[in-house]
Amino acid sequence: MRILIVGASGTVGQAVTSALSSQHEIVKAGRSHGEFRVDILDIGKVRSLFKEVGTIDAVVCTAGNVHFGPLATMSAEKLWIGLQDKLMGQINLVLAGQTYLTDGGSFTLTTGSLSQIPIREASSASMVDGALESFVRAAAIELPRGLRINAVSPTILQESMDAFGHYFHGYEPVPASRVALAYVRSIEGAQTGEVYKVW
Amino acid sequence: MRILIVGASGTVGQAVTSALSSQHEIVKAGRSHGEFRVDILDIGKVRSLFKEVGTIDAVVCTAGNVHFGPLATMSAEKLWIGLQDKLMGQINLVLAGQTYLTDGGSFTLTTGSLSQIPIREASSASMVDGALESFVRAAAIELPRGLRINAVSPTILQESMDAFGHYFHGYEPVPASRVALAYVRSIEGAQTGEVYKVW
Repeated sequence: MRILIVGASGTVGQAVTSALSSQHEIVKAGRSHGEFRVDILDIGKVRSLFKEVGTIDAVVCTAGNVHFGPLATMSAEKLWIGLQDKLMGQINLVLAGQTYLTDGGSFTLTTGSLSQIPIREASSASMVDGALESFVRAAAIELPRGLRINAVSPTILQESMDAFGHYFHGYEPVPASRVALAYVRSIEGAQTGEVYKVW
Repeated sequence: MRILIVGASGTVGQAVTSALSSQHEIVKAGRSHGEFRVDILDIGKVRSLFKEVGTIDAVVCTAGNVHFGPLATMSAEKLWIGLQDKLMGQINLVLAGQTYLTDGGSFTLTTGSLSQIPIREASSASMVDGALESFVRAAAIELPRGLRINAVSPTILQESMDAFGHYFHGYEPVPASRVALAYVRSIEGAQTGEVYKVW
């Protein structure tokens, strides 16, 4: 398969690339790294990306930011960061990509354990992850031409413990290489509308 | 208790008002009906509402719009309608209200069965409902002073079958009066971070 990975330079993106590259052709895209540069917050630019890259059988997105901070000082503006970036950035790939992917192709998005298991200061991440999981279930029953869509839900990564570990005391981190296997299951498997938990 | 109902003139809002009004003082608010007029999409106006209404022990929100339409023609703009209105409108009430509600007070928001059980043309509603449910779980563990937050998840209402029944063939509608009971459970009960399914 020819697989587009958006966010390929990130920790998870690199691990997914490693897990897939012996069997598949990988096309890397990102905001500031990769063969193709794209701002996925702009659906017009996402459409241009699909036109440029040509035939694609699977899309993986491992890009997306949210704001972390206490609910007491959370503002609407801070919540919009996650809605525009991690949520709508990924969904723009689906809205645009549904007409470009080859028959039977797949989308694999990235959610996270916070949709189900909240921690302090992560109400934005929880909200965005919950939105992504329900969107994936809904899109799965409407996509045409045998297209599939799933999401991978990692918990805190071993590689992110220095930066984010203080939010996740008591949670068992997982290596990005283990998270990457879930993307492989989504792409090479036959399921749709699934959330693959890696926690 | 003194209970603020935002969206009190809607089908569910009226039923919740009926269910609560013999035991509680109800303050009705809405975009174009009620004692207090408020555009909940504007958090500044939500703050002004809380200042105006005075002491409030519980907030119910039964207001919120989303766009229905096929995934094939769904645009980012159409998805933004639900994110701005049903999602952030309700969340603005929580962000602003967390400093105004009396100790031990509660928020009860409105989600829907589509977060878990998708139907055609409702990817926006699914996404918004999923976001609300995860936000409620996350906010519940951060709210101060014994404040609680829950959501009620109705399926299609008997009263809405004429307008929306064609989307929900095979689904068993519920009367708004039965949905209203879940809001009473949320307000008078002691749970927090819960989603009360009425389906």
